[in-house]
Amino acid sequence: MTEEPIMDIAHLGHLELLTPKLDESLRFFVDVMGMTESGRQGNSVYLRAWDDYERYSLQLTASQTSGLGHAAFRTRSPQALQRRVAALESSGAGIGWVENNLGHGPSYRFRDPDDHVIEIYYETEWYQAPPELRPALKNQAQRFPARGVNVRRLDHLNCLAVDIRANRIFFETYLGLRLTEQIVLNDGTEAAMWMTMSNKSYDFAYTRDHYGKKGRFHHVTYALDSREDVLRAADIFLENGVYIETGPHKHAIQQTFFLYVYEPGGNRVEVANAGARLILAPDWKPIVWTEEERKKGQAWGLKTIESFHTHGTPPVED
Amino acid sequence: MTEEPIMDIAHLGHLELLTPKLDESLRFFVDVMGMTESGRQGNSVYLRAWDDYERYSLQLTASQTSGLGHAAFRTRSPQALQRRVAALESSGAGIGWVENNLGHGPSYRFRDPDDHVIEIYYETEWYQAPPELRPALKNQAQRFPARGVNVRRLDHLNCLAVDIRANRIFFETYLGLRLTEQIVLNDGTEAAMWMTMSNKSYDFAYTRDHYGKKGRFHHVTYALDSREDVLRAADIFLENGVYIETGPHKHAIQQTFFLYVYEPGGNRVEVANAGARLILAPDWKPIVWTEEERKKGQAWGLKTIESFHTHGTPPVED
Amino acid sequence: MTEEPIMDIAHLGHLELLTPKLDESLRFFVDVMGMTESGRQGNSVYLRAWDDYERYSLQLTASQTSGLGHAAFRTRSPQALQRRVAALESSGAGIGWVENNLGHGPSYRFRDPDDHVIEIYYETEWYQAPPELRPALKNQAQRFPARGVNVRRLDHLNCLAVDIRANRIFFETYLGLRLTEQIVLNDGTEAAMWMTMSNKSYDFAYTRDHYGKKGRFHHVTYALDSREDVLRAADIFLENGVYIETGPHKHAIQQTFFLYVYEPGGNRVEVANAGARLILAPDWKPIVWTEEERKKGQAWGLKTIESFHTHGTPPVED
Amino acid sequence: MTEEPIMDIAHLGHLELLTPKLDESLRFFVDVMGMTESGRQGNSVYLRAWDDYERYSLQLTASQTSGLGHAAFRTRSPQALQRRVAALESSGAGIGWVENNLGHGPSYRFRDPDDHVIEIYYETEWYQAPPELRPALKNQAQRFPARGVNVRRLDHLNCLAVDIRANRIFFETYLGLRLTEQIVLNDGTEAAMWMTMSNKSYDFAYTRDHYGKKGRFHHVTYALDSREDVLRAADIFLENGVYIETGPHKHAIQQTFFLYVYEPGGNRVEVANAGARLILAPDWKPIVWTEEERKKGQAWGLKTIESFHTHGTPPVED
Repeated sequence: MTEEPIMDIAHLGHLELLTPKLDESLRFFVDVMGMTESGRQGNSVYLRAWDDYERYSLQLTASQTSGLGHAAFRTRSPQALQRRVAALESSGAGIGWVENNLGHGPSYRFRDPDDHVIEIYYETEWYQAPPELRPALKNQAQRFPARGVNVRRLDHLNCLAVDIRANRIFFETYLGLRLTEQIVLNDGTEAAMWMTMSNKSYDFAYTRDHYGKKGRFHHVTYALDSREDVLRAADIFLENGVYIETGPHKHAIQQTFFLYVYEPGGNRVEVANAGARLILAPDWKPIVWTEEERKKGQAWGLKTIESFHTHGTPPVED
Repeated sequence: MTEEPIMDIAHLGHLELLTPKLDESLRFFVDVMGMTESGRQGNSVYLRAWDDYERYSLQLTASQTSGLGHAAFRTRSPQALQRRVAALESSGAGIGWVENNLGHGPSYRFRDPDDHVIEIYYETEWYQAPPELRPALKNQAQRFPARGVNVRRLDHLNCLAVDIRANRIFFETYLGLRLTEQIVLNDGTEAAMWMTMSNKSYDFAYTRDHYGKKGRFHHVTYALDSREDVLRAADIFLENGVYIETGPHKHAIQQTFFLYVYEPGGNRVEVANAGARLILAPDWKPIVWTEEERKKGQAWGLKTIESFHTHGTPPVED
Repeated sequence: MTEEPIMDIAHLGHLELLTPKLDESLRFFVDVMGMTESGRQGNSVYLRAWDDYERYSLQLTASQTSGLGHAAFRTRSPQALQRRVAALESSGAGIGWVENNLGHGPSYRFRDPDDHVIEIYYETEWYQAPPELRPALKNQAQRFPARGVNVRRLDHLNCLAVDIRANRIFFETYLGLRLTEQIVLNDGTEAAMWMTMSNKSYDFAYTRDHYGKKGRFHHVTYALDSREDVLRAADIFLENGVYIETGPHKHAIQQTFFLYVYEPGGNRVEVANAGARLILAPDWKPIVWTEEERKKGQAWGLKTIESFHTHGTPPVED
Repeated sequence: MTEEPIMDIAHLGHLELLTPKLDESLRFFVDVMGMTESGRQGNSVYLRAWDDYERYSLQLTASQTSGLGHAAFRTRSPQALQRRVAALESSGAGIGWVENNLGHGPSYRFRDPDDHVIEIYYETEWYQAPPELRPALKNQAQRFPARGVNVRRLDHLNCLAVDIRANRIFFETYLGLRLTEQIVLNDGTEAAMWMTMSNKSYDFAYTRDHYGKKGRFHHVTYALDSREDVLRAADIFLENGVYIETGPHKHAIQQTFFLYVYEPGGNRVEVANAGARLILAPDWKPIVWTEEERKKGQAWGLKTIESFHTHGTPPVED
């Protein structure tokens, strides 16, 4: 019999994004994306989408540059947290425990092979909407804002990395995450990977860094309910002078209906929809895309824009 | 520390529906629902939606009456199957192993407290599309049919039961399934329950049988990608003379965008969309709906139609 | 040869709605419907949808009761205005010219056979968006607001009337409007009519007043771009505590995808979508619906709610 | 007072497309586009979309090459037809009357300044659906096919021309059509025009021929009900191996949500949606786009693909 899958990581919990323009970034996420501020501490403002069940899914931190502060995964149970911490400690990648987090309990931080900082935690604060934001239906975390793009929930994160294969093996080995799709080049090297910890077809992706620089960030994605919502988001970004990099269009990989913009701090932000697509098979066989297949562009033939391969945060000094 | 969640059941695999009008039911599922025949054996025809990864999700069986033949859940691993079989054997509800199943390996059958027959299995046959049904994108099981309603994948099942609480405890105890929403009446009795084995907000529901009769079936649901797809389905059902019972509208419970019709054999069939809503929290607290809340009708005020409370299959002789 | 069609009336221009709760009505139209205030004069506030090309399409007037102040049609040319005024003067229904209108030139007012006040005018003020409301695309009147329901443009109006046939003949004879659909009861009397002055399948409708009272108003309708937009509007009305009377559902007549609510002043308001449906035929043959056909309910089987037949504004004293 | 608008042309009636691969083109329009064959005569097959009220909107004619056979406009009345024929005869562009047309009465043919053949007619055959294609709702021409892309109705046509200004003046002068948008280059020459005869924002467009060759065809467009329908069409084209040239995306000009493909005969075909956008103003002021504005690409930033400027039918011999 094959080994049983590790089910210890439940879902992506939140991200910390660094921004050199905190006020402008905040206005973008609140007014244009339709998110709600749910906390402030130190140099950070905490934000949430209306269907996020935890207190927040985005921590915006004032910084000299842009990029990813850290990403956070919630474990399935306290025991699962202990098991994963033990595994991470054995890996040599551990940083250590962080206490006194706003909105969640103690977290254990580590570095992936590309030096991105990630934390895992179990205890969390369920969002309690104030009276004016209470939803009409009690199975919903917060009132639908009807403002801007109205993003529903955090969906996934995408990092750049120098060695994709090393990162894949790290997440498989120490966290038990599952590969659903990947790009393997003609020379046999892995150029990108999509991994899941849930029934979503991916919870994060890593793509090879064009500049060979470690620790960079590609984008964060919020989910919308329909492809029409993504199209309407494009209309709203246009009206608000937000830079649209590419989309809306459909990725061949994962079939995500995507739209990429840059927030004022320089970080790439995606709004996306996957329809009713889920990975329900517990033994999903990873889809491998070749170099030739990738050259065909996106699902309906759109050629991938150059900046999509090169732009990451923080920017690389030339 | 609390007990860890049991993750042994991966997803709803398929349903066997009984029909006194096999040919007409088959035409409905193929021509109107847009499903594909993928096998025949004995009195049964096997059908699949275009995004089902297994060989089939629906077994239509010629019978003297309508109703549920059996439902099937796929386990997460061979070991998970063994663990659940051991638990079920201890429950006294076990029926025993069934070999030689079309499309999947050995299954262990049992009866829930309401006498519905359910099986669990692990080994399965992944669907291999013949050349004319091969999709353009390799991460998809089958070509999008562009015929009729084009249902995407099996979503959930709804049974009637005499004792909802007993069924809830049974599925929690022996299969480790999780309650996400329920109706509790003023007298404290449970009138309906929605349970999940995945990140979907429910994989099946049980509602109290109006006639106090055991083993009856309420409906099977196939997922569509958007609410617009559900509306278009209503147009198509209308054009094809299919009886529309109620909808499209939005349930307050689970917020599903629903549409119910009767297939020619008499069984209720739903097409539905949940948007980007998922239950990601590993410690979701069940939402409890009261009698008063239920009287408000559906989310946007539609009063629940009488037949929705009474019609089940097989029909009850008056 | 048959007589040539009269093309003198170009489109529905605006409506004046009376409300006993001006402030609350205003908040509803601005915050929930997503309209923009574009003028104030006397007891009236003027409002516009983002794609209305004229300065406003709705005049809200503080009043002791609810109902229609007046409706206004724009003519195709100055000559067309003169021709229609001459015809109306010959009809005996004329009231006379009104000068000094906010937002448009002189208008000629008349009473339809049911005593609703209607005006026709040609000269109009094209909306000039202030800098903060200027759209990104120059072929659009105003920035998409991304607030609330985001109604696009005034679509149609529905009045109650005692004698439908008399009203139909009046509008055909003196204004050259065209009947596209109607309800004719078994006793041969006309119970409802839908008339057009454009390629829209109707610009207004009249339905028989349940109480036999003259001059009452049934609803005003704003157009949205898709059925999904109407569904989202239902979500937003629910969140804002707006009373939803019926819908979303599809009318059999005209196939409009509808949703009816009551604004705080008591007037019924609809948001609707017609898809790509247009009446392009210059010789469209009116569709006649019988009593039996109407009993089938709406397109997908929804039974028409009782209040839809009885509620009008101003309310009738019992 | 200014001159009154001429309202003699009611709408675009049909197109004749030439194809060197009649059988393959026919399969494309029937199986993929979801159209219905409604006649055969000589080398032509006649096709219709489900909401076209006339017998057909597309005549496919076997030919040695591709391109436009002719386009046809329906007049508003018999008198309107006579008036326009008189005007065309005075223009010197007239060809003469054609009798014995399948599906419509006598038509008068003429050449626009770029040598495209166009006809005008009034008498027409309303489509009578055979029993198996009869719709459930009597205000609809034909049953919704639920097959392929399900195009709703003919929307518009786009021709290439050498002298855009000459063509604009011709259609304004002799047919009374109205310009809604245009491109004027820095040197003052007109590079493209969009003209309307209805409340649609355009019924045809002409763009400058890259090769300076007369009489060529750019594309024919069928309307769909929503942007989601256009996205689904892209999925279906992909599955059927149809060449997708560009889109789905939103044009800045006219704000059309577009998708362009090539049918097997080489002609470009568009499916599109305009939402609830209509030109209701009888005195619409044409929107003028400059060279700089055009360089920005489409509404959401997509760069216009090179072949969109060069590919026309028949192809130009290099």
